[in-house]
Amino acid sequence: MWKDKRLIELLDIQHPIIQAPMAGASTPQMAAASANAGCLGSLGCAMMSVETYQETYAKTRALTNGALNMNFFCHDEPTIDEKKVKQIKQVMAPFYQELEIENMPDAVPTHFPFGNDLADAVLRTNPNIVSFHFGLPEQSIVEALKDKGILILCSATTVQEAKDLEAKGVDAIIAQGWEAGGHHGFYLKDKSAGIGTMALVPQIVDAVKAPVIAAGGIADGRGIAACLALGAAGVQIGTAFLTCEESSVPQVHQQSLMQSDGSNTSLTKVFSGRPARGIQNRYIQEMERFEDSLPDFPLMNTLTGPLRKESAASHSPDFIAQWSGQAVGLNRKTNVGDLIESLVEETKSVLDKLV
Amino acid sequence: MWKDKRLIELLDIQHPIIQAPMAGASTPQMAAASANAGCLGSLGCAMMSVETYQETYAKTRALTNGALNMNFFCHDEPTIDEKKVKQIKQVMAPFYQELEIENMPDAVPTHFPFGNDLADAVLRTNPNIVSFHFGLPEQSIVEALKDKGILILCSATTVQEAKDLEAKGVDAIIAQGWEAGGHHGFYLKDKSAGIGTMALVPQIVDAVKAPVIAAGGIADGRGIAACLALGAAGVQIGTAFLTCEESSVPQVHQQSLMQSDGSNTSLTKVFSGRPARGIQNRYIQEMERFEDSLPDFPLMNTLTGPLRKESAASHSPDFIAQWSGQAVGLNRKTNVGDLIESLVEETKSVLDKLV
Repeated sequence: MWKDKRLIELLDIQHPIIQAPMAGASTPQMAAASANAGCLGSLGCAMMSVETYQETYAKTRALTNGALNMNFFCHDEPTIDEKKVKQIKQVMAPFYQELEIENMPDAVPTHFPFGNDLADAVLRTNPNIVSFHFGLPEQSIVEALKDKGILILCSATTVQEAKDLEAKGVDAIIAQGWEAGGHHGFYLKDKSAGIGTMALVPQIVDAVKAPVIAAGGIADGRGIAACLALGAAGVQIGTAFLTCEESSVPQVHQQSLMQSDGSNTSLTKVFSGRPARGIQNRYIQEMERFEDSLPDFPLMNTLTGPLRKESAASHSPDFIAQWSGQAVGLNRKTNVGDLIESLVEETKSVLDKLV
Repeated sequence: MWKDKRLIELLDIQHPIIQAPMAGASTPQMAAASANAGCLGSLGCAMMSVETYQETYAKTRALTNGALNMNFFCHDEPTIDEKKVKQIKQVMAPFYQELEIENMPDAVPTHFPFGNDLADAVLRTNPNIVSFHFGLPEQSIVEALKDKGILILCSATTVQEAKDLEAKGVDAIIAQGWEAGGHHGFYLKDKSAGIGTMALVPQIVDAVKAPVIAAGGIADGRGIAACLALGAAGVQIGTAFLTCEESSVPQVHQQSLMQSDGSNTSLTKVFSGRPARGIQNRYIQEMERFEDSLPDFPLMNTLTGPLRKESAASHSPDFIAQWSGQAVGLNRKTNVGDLIESLVEETKSVLDKLV
């Protein structure tokens, strides 16, 4: 049914749909079910050590022979600013008291920037595809991955980033729009340009030769058809997978997703130190005035860890990072296989009615 | 060629495309050329007195027999907070000195909220359609317009606003996404929910029975086809008309539009007191730290008026309100008739290739 076969042929998949890698939410079961349904299954590996990555990859590969995408973050190593850390710990101390958590952790990184160790592990495991967020790793690593035949995808949030990625040799560009849930992948500037998917995709399509994958605000067949109309070769969908059985996000997060009409998300740095879109809650409201004085990404993620865990355990949304895109009002309670079948059928139905 | 005929039949037009009303940028020539090309031609009347409105309507009507849409703002009457006015005048005084403008005007409103006087003028002139921004006027006025057979459109930026407008009897809902240039029409909350067009349109389509018109980030046939895929009955396009011959925006503003890749716009209150999207310039940069202490809309518009005028006259972008949506990278130097012909042909071509 897909007239544009660029992405299908490049990634060796049946449908031009990528299940978004979502560190902390995607699971081997989710990625394998996506791959088994003919899409690209992805794992968010940004918080994984080399050992965890290898185990998780093996576990996923055991569940599918399909195409798998391993996703990594390419942020800078954080500088640990002791003064900033001390100040924000003071601000956060009352939350720890309230939740009766005794010790606040040290500000050490949880997310590992993609370097030689992880690159070696990727070369050993040899996934079909790797995708990067916050730019690319060193060019020598990019070349090593390409030499091995591993395809490389990376997020762009502006025309300038898309051109930069193409020049560095990526195989396809993920045009991540303002609507997207979770971390926004801008990297050439220190602030999001905030360009919505409707405006971003055609401008990037015009600027590069590589296939463009639309991401942000896509949650059903209408969104998929719309992005194909904009010139995208395919789509990446995240939030719609969060309320699937295979998702690992807490029940209370899933409830917030099912109740949202898309108007209560915001882009916030307060969970990790970098802007990410999630459903507003008490923690965001109380912390947003400190947005400009937070320690570097991902140190805040370490400091919020025990709060997020305890909040989830007690079924409270107050301190959870409830990542969500803006099309969350279209979410359904389902499983990955059924979701993908519906997405494909809906797209076909929309396209048939259009012409 | 249009399979979905809801908007075409409702508005009695040939193409489901609305040339956006843009106060200060749309002209009788622009609206008439749009109507003569089979679209809905619009005039932004938010800064017009009753007399100016009547003259402008007559001038436009003399140029076309097609469908015309008169657009008004439904903001609250401003409270003049003398302290805020005094403070912001002090902040702005150096700009007046620099541009050698002697007197800063008093903080009196330039935009007239739609009330009985304008309603009477509209009933007398009897345009085919009126559209509103920042919500609707009093229900008695809505009823009087409907009794006269005038169709009513209004902007919604959330599902909640769309449902509110439908309950109050509007004939079609303009789903205005985050990408849109100029003033954002949210009205039920005091802050934009910031929902992108890709996410907003299908969620509003699911929530209301009235036809939905997509707006924000649409600038070519790809965007039009995409919005039809999302379930919109038509589109409203603004920025693409700003670089047409019929546009009244300054040359320097048009140059900024033609040079942008969509990454340098922001939503700012500093020109009028309400958030509007425009291309960043020196005035925005220097004033954004005062965003939370500005006098009510539209008092700031009065205070910035002489700066904007002088800046335009000296071909400087520094103090101009360079309204622009995020798809501005797709803009072309053309005229309204040619633009609409291209939009229609492109849409047909995109739809033909999709299936």
